[in-house]
Amino acid sequence: MDVSRILELLMHGNQLKRTTRTGWAQRGVPLPENVAAHSYGVIYTALVLAELVEPQPDLAAALAMAALHDLPEGLTTDIPTPAWRFLPTGAKTEAEQRAMTTIVGDAPFGPRLLNWWETLRLNETPEARLVHDADKLDQYLQAYVYERQTGNRQLEEFWVVAHRFHYPLAQAIYDELRARRTASGAG
Amino acid sequence: MDVSRILELLMHGNQLKRTTRTGWAQRGVPLPENVAAHSYGVIYTALVLAELVEPQPDLAAALAMAALHDLPEGLTTDIPTPAWRFLPTGAKTEAEQRAMTTIVGDAPFGPRLLNWWETLRLNETPEARLVHDADKLDQYLQAYVYERQTGNRQLEEFWVVAHRFHYPLAQAIYDELRARRTASGAG
Amino acid sequence: MDVSRILELLMHGNQLKRTTRTGWAQRGVPLPENVAAHSYGVIYTALVLAELVEPQPDLAAALAMAALHDLPEGLTTDIPTPAWRFLPTGAKTEAEQRAMTTIVGDAPFGPRLLNWWETLRLNETPEARLVHDADKLDQYLQAYVYERQTGNRQLEEFWVVAHRFHYPLAQAIYDELRARRTASGAG
Amino acid sequence: MDVSRILELLMHGNQLKRTTRTGWAQRGVPLPENVAAHSYGVIYTALVLAELVEPQPDLAAALAMAALHDLPEGLTTDIPTPAWRFLPTGAKTEAEQRAMTTIVGDAPFGPRLLNWWETLRLNETPEARLVHDADKLDQYLQAYVYERQTGNRQLEEFWVVAHRFHYPLAQAIYDELRARRTASGAG
Amino acid sequence: MDVSRILELLMHGNQLKRTTRTGWAQRGVPLPENVAAHSYGVIYTALVLAELVEPQPDLAAALAMAALHDLPEGLTTDIPTPAWRFLPTGAKTEAEQRAMTTIVGDAPFGPRLLNWWETLRLNETPEARLVHDADKLDQYLQAYVYERQTGNRQLEEFWVVAHRFHYPLAQAIYDELRARRTASGAG
Amino acid sequence: MDVSRILELLMHGNQLKRTTRTGWAQRGVPLPENVAAHSYGVIYTALVLAELVEPQPDLAAALAMAALHDLPEGLTTDIPTPAWRFLPTGAKTEAEQRAMTTIVGDAPFGPRLLNWWETLRLNETPEARLVHDADKLDQYLQAYVYERQTGNRQLEEFWVVAHRFHYPLAQAIYDELRARRTASGAG
Repeated sequence: MDVSRILELLMHGNQLKRTTRTGWAQRGVPLPENVAAHSYGVIYTALVLAELVEPQPDLAAALAMAALHDLPEGLTTDIPTPAWRFLPTGAKTEAEQRAMTTIVGDAPFGPRLLNWWETLRLNETPEARLVHDADKLDQYLQAYVYERQTGNRQLEEFWVVAHRFHYPLAQAIYDELRARRTASGAG
Repeated sequence: MDVSRILELLMHGNQLKRTTRTGWAQRGVPLPENVAAHSYGVIYTALVLAELVEPQPDLAAALAMAALHDLPEGLTTDIPTPAWRFLPTGAKTEAEQRAMTTIVGDAPFGPRLLNWWETLRLNETPEARLVHDADKLDQYLQAYVYERQTGNRQLEEFWVVAHRFHYPLAQAIYDELRARRTASGAG
Repeated sequence: MDVSRILELLMHGNQLKRTTRTGWAQRGVPLPENVAAHSYGVIYTALVLAELVEPQPDLAAALAMAALHDLPEGLTTDIPTPAWRFLPTGAKTEAEQRAMTTIVGDAPFGPRLLNWWETLRLNETPEARLVHDADKLDQYLQAYVYERQTGNRQLEEFWVVAHRFHYPLAQAIYDELRARRTASGAG
Repeated sequence: MDVSRILELLMHGNQLKRTTRTGWAQRGVPLPENVAAHSYGVIYTALVLAELVEPQPDLAAALAMAALHDLPEGLTTDIPTPAWRFLPTGAKTEAEQRAMTTIVGDAPFGPRLLNWWETLRLNETPEARLVHDADKLDQYLQAYVYERQTGNRQLEEFWVVAHRFHYPLAQAIYDELRARRTASGAG
Repeated sequence: MDVSRILELLMHGNQLKRTTRTGWAQRGVPLPENVAAHSYGVIYTALVLAELVEPQPDLAAALAMAALHDLPEGLTTDIPTPAWRFLPTGAKTEAEQRAMTTIVGDAPFGPRLLNWWETLRLNETPEARLVHDADKLDQYLQAYVYERQTGNRQLEEFWVVAHRFHYPLAQAIYDELRARRTASGAG
Repeated sequence: MDVSRILELLMHGNQLKRTTRTGWAQRGVPLPENVAAHSYGVIYTALVLAELVEPQPDLAAALAMAALHDLPEGLTTDIPTPAWRFLPTGAKTEAEQRAMTTIVGDAPFGPRLLNWWETLRLNETPEARLVHDADKLDQYLQAYVYERQTGNRQLEEFWVVAHRFHYPLAQAIYDELRARRTASGAG
């Protein structure tokens, strides 16, 4: 694998620093976080959760999945959930798969990276479920922080429907977060 | 038409103020313009062009088309051109039509707005062509300004392939812009 | 009209993208909208209103007026209302007229643009009144959105004195906005 | 003097933190400095100069003048130099005097503050000249820094006409700055 | 003293424009003020206080101390108070002294500047106490403004422990600020 | 381990989203990346490198180390390298250890997290060296991108002394980056 190709691969990760999380932007959060910062939150949360759940998951797989989770968004941008209903069924998955293949497909270890990404998408392993829970926990924690720090009242939308987590621990953390939010008068 | 519905309609336009032009963001322009500001540029440019071309176009139609041009992006966000290749053929048009219908479909004057938007998309009338030229002129003018004011060298990508305009006047303005860019050492 | 002169004319419109709406900035709204984005809001609002009022106004005139409304502010900046009391009576109008003349005066269609701008200022035609109503509606809608999305409590000042609109429809939209604001506990 | 009045006085100074230096904004500097930060630059520069010139100026007067210099801009905003040509002759001075009087006029020490401000404006004392030199030095130093750090090429306009300073020392610093700018290839 | 050395000295002051007040940043204030803007607030507040307290302090000394107060932070950055507990006792003072010496040490008037800075640190003169009071007043006024303008609820932390000022006047202003905060429902 | 304690632990990671990389800020990069986004870059880079070096490192350890690397900076802020020379020898390491202990010390898995962090610091294992290389690669890649996208010329400082990496692959990527930088005229 030549060095130029590796540099290109690294640049795809770097691109997440310039990819805004559109859900916050659409609701007027000033200077909302980018996908790289969110991805860090997911990885860190997965690391903490992995230490606490039983049986202990494969940490390398969990962290790798978390690191690759939103990598295609450097190419596709973060198309927000409500926008996908205007696109054909399955278009989101297909677009992300194609983007992911464009990014890593011809690397010698491409199949390995694609496999992690696909495993996460199928959401059938303990590690995949852990990362999905971490993904949501980071999102709700961020919503909570934004509400406290920016006074944004439109973020209430995030809390209307209570989320169901895979792991009881993740559920308990989320429930605690909801309780704090209500106690602080934001809910 | 009840007042709540009109307010909702106005809010869709307001949403463009929170919708970033992703082409600039992906290339690292700090605090890039939003779709509302760009749309203003298109409308203003269309107004100037309309005064100068022969035969004089239907100004109301041209300005209305320009004002409606990117309205769906408040719902879909500005999915950048390179991202559409990961989506099914025709998905972009379909998504924007659906979003536009969601926004204005049930308003009493919905058909009229949809008709302008569709006419623009088909690009077969003098007014539609004028607005497409104005759309591109605003983009290139902005690229030129960003290059001069932010020192961004990645915007060179915008100038690699020379654009072909419908109106000779628009072409002449663009050619002048390219010439100035080259003369100032940016090219 | 030579191409350089047209480019200069377009640059004056582009300048509105770098001209902050100072009323928001003075009250601490982070990254407040610029005049271009506001002007888009006025144009879009005028388009919606024009479809709903009777007798139907001259749409081309209304949209052109809205597009030209704040064009002088690229040169004068958006000097906020409270600041004008420190300047001689009539200075605001005179300054904007002079700036507008500097911008478009020597264009072949300069008189036509100046005429629209002057007609708007005199506020005696149905189109001028429609645009003035659209101008205020966009401002109040933005104040409402900023209050909801930034928690800014200093924007209360905007709502102390109820505005009187020319068109009953604009009045009804504004009244609905005030009612929503009060219902949401912001008022 | 009651405490509420003093708080109001302090708030006028605080307002400079929300008052953008429009000259930079108009030329596309991202997140340009505000008047408070610039004023700090003027005060600090005046302090350094005051230690170096002969005969030693009245330091208290020099620093107080520098601190009050742009205080009216919290009310008037920073109307840029090119905009004043659209206003009546003398309107700038008159507006700032009126604003200054509004801010400090009825304070027990109002006359003292106004006197410093007026002395600065008349520019006939060594201290006033020192502060004017410091004002310009901070502006040129900032232009130099922005050029180096943002790649903005439109700031070249600031250097076209060489400035003439009152103090030879200020002139020497400015000349050195110009020389460095040229040597670094920006000129 | 050669001109290059003076330029370097001025650049150290200029650096405060790029040095964020980290206490606000850590609590999620969007685009928080920098040290230069804060320093301006301290200087201006000191100027106002100096006019009102008895016996009248040495104004030149007070303003110079205020201007130099945070100058070392251009080199050290604004390490927030809670962070210092992780560093050895006395490390903060030592670091700032060293940085200050680096900045001004070899200037002909270095000893004079260092003396002001040291006098302020020892906090035993009327002027030093006045500047410390001004420093805190600017901080609390800014906290109050941020709470009103950004809806940030985490800034409550600043008000938990009531501050004790040296001067009764500063205390009265602060008490008034607390009272207003409570009255407006923020407390 | 109670849920509140876990939430607190997650909040420490979240804090990195509000912790600016001060090296960029001091050099005037507008809206520089935060530590969370940088940490993502390090993790992603470590993942890519880990797939390519021989013998294959313990991926879980490498990614966990990368995720924990800058965690203390949420408490200490990112005190830039040049600032540490004003602090006692060893103060940086001690401060980060103390902060890290404050963050994770009393968690049931605290020792495990501290051990990763300490192993990284000692830099004696293949995984630790890989993460250090990834840390530097992300920094240089970001410097390269900022230079291209913001025209900042002060970032030249980062390239004066060529960095020595542990892994030949990291060295080759860095050398390629330097070559590209020179070829593009930035060097």
